[in-house]
Amino acid sequence: MHDSHPGLANSRDDRPVPTLAPGVYLYPGSFETIIGLLRTGITALAAGQPFRRLAIPPVISRRTIERAGYVKTFPQLLGTVHSYAGDAKTWGKLMPLVDEGGPWHSEQAISDLVLLPAACYPVYQTLVGQQLDGPRKFHVEANCFRQEATSETGRLRTFRMVELVTAGTEDYCLDYRDHWLKRVEGWFTRLGLDVTIEVADDPFFGPGKKLYQAAQRMQELKFELRVPVAENLVQAIASANFHKDHFGEAFDFTVDGAVGNTSCMAFGMERVAFALMHRHGTDPEQWPADVLAAIEDGND
Amino acid sequence: MHDSHPGLANSRDDRPVPTLAPGVYLYPGSFETIIGLLRTGITALAAGQPFRRLAIPPVISRRTIERAGYVKTFPQLLGTVHSYAGDAKTWGKLMPLVDEGGPWHSEQAISDLVLLPAACYPVYQTLVGQQLDGPRKFHVEANCFRQEATSETGRLRTFRMVELVTAGTEDYCLDYRDHWLKRVEGWFTRLGLDVTIEVADDPFFGPGKKLYQAAQRMQELKFELRVPVAENLVQAIASANFHKDHFGEAFDFTVDGAVGNTSCMAFGMERVAFALMHRHGTDPEQWPADVLAAIEDGND
Repeated sequence: MHDSHPGLANSRDDRPVPTLAPGVYLYPGSFETIIGLLRTGITALAAGQPFRRLAIPPVISRRTIERAGYVKTFPQLLGTVHSYAGDAKTWGKLMPLVDEGGPWHSEQAISDLVLLPAACYPVYQTLVGQQLDGPRKFHVEANCFRQEATSETGRLRTFRMVELVTAGTEDYCLDYRDHWLKRVEGWFTRLGLDVTIEVADDPFFGPGKKLYQAAQRMQELKFELRVPVAENLVQAIASANFHKDHFGEAFDFTVDGAVGNTSCMAFGMERVAFALMHRHGTDPEQWPADVLAAIEDGND
Repeated sequence: MHDSHPGLANSRDDRPVPTLAPGVYLYPGSFETIIGLLRTGITALAAGQPFRRLAIPPVISRRTIERAGYVKTFPQLLGTVHSYAGDAKTWGKLMPLVDEGGPWHSEQAISDLVLLPAACYPVYQTLVGQQLDGPRKFHVEANCFRQEATSETGRLRTFRMVELVTAGTEDYCLDYRDHWLKRVEGWFTRLGLDVTIEVADDPFFGPGKKLYQAAQRMQELKFELRVPVAENLVQAIASANFHKDHFGEAFDFTVDGAVGNTSCMAFGMERVAFALMHRHGTDPEQWPADVLAAIEDGND
């Protein structure tokens, strides 16, 4: 055991623990050590720019997600939060159904909350009605949820996302996206990861699906950083996104007098950890010292 | 600004940011600094005992929560996760309802997941069918959810909970609960908090409510550590709980040949932070050095 790295005292070779639910895992100490190193690295990457840090809870106002346009285009991925709408007397009748495996949930009604689909959404809500006189930057982390239909490695339904988000003018946001795409590519490469950058699209749903995807690709709005996360399995572990004025329109904010544009650099934390484990082994105690240092220093 | 304490570099005087949803807040860097100090302190408290650390996601298999008995007794607090069960063509008809404020969610169906009500539940599921030859200990943290009906300070619907859980014999679990109750009382007192310990009960629901509450109180199963968190507002910021063989029965595990018992020491992380902010001010940069040291050293 190397004693040299203080962050690793509790780490062991230990993979995520499956649960009864596909795509939902528990994460042991050694895995959290990797997540902690990555957090430190992203914070180091972001140092020197005025990011406002916000920790984001895993649920969000349904109204915010409706307003953001997410419901319309990704209904198949959204988790809505429902709760019991009946009284105590009615529950006396439903309760026995729990043991019988019956429909005890027949009185559940949709609530004002949904599960958070991406870490950045609450940020846009904080900007409603604002006339910004320059760019704003946010460093956010959240547990996110997507009702994925399959569950291979890295295809998680609940996962942690860190995002470096900006609101600014169109030119500012385009530069920001390109700047972060290059920096993170450089950082991942220094970590020994084999990165491919690809223009990508989001998993739209419904009648407009193909049109949306084609438009997103043609405008080169989304770039994914794709890396091997398991044998014969390459996944996007991060993405750099330019949203144009989508959120400025939806949430009614301006920057320097025009409808606000936004961009974000998003990290899928478990996937980055899987990629590092695939490359360097499951036990961070055994990783080369220069890799550990490079994760934390966040240099590209 | 004091430069002496390395954990405080990013902290500012900054309160949680409200969102459109009652009981759901975003947490700024200074608040997260306090949460981070508390995590360090609890880890220090737990050092020297063989706790298995697990990071727990904010959703859990519905079957696990049904089996745990939570659905029967706390249906009013449970958040169930629903998702779209229709096809793309049907969505073409529902989608326009999003902008109109109509029932776009009429095809949502209950899923295999619910929101996690407490951090410890996944632990019991990992013990199913096991015959343990001695106590087991788990140090878990999760975002938890409860559909609270009111939303005063500290009455959060989404919040972070750290738990130190054990499975063992009846005697072992009773001693464990009493040991932790005393230690945490000592720790909180050193932090300058004015702690009262009270026998408590859980917010049961339905016809059996009063009977359950009376039985829980009479057996002194739950002790709360109550502390002022705002002007004229005292809340439980932590609790020490003995569950007897409830989870051993429900999840079918034994310890030393008898049905397993369990106990846990649970910390409501935001509430502990609110109590500290109420006592020492909202900016941890300005807290006395001995208080900061006492948070992190975890001594009772």
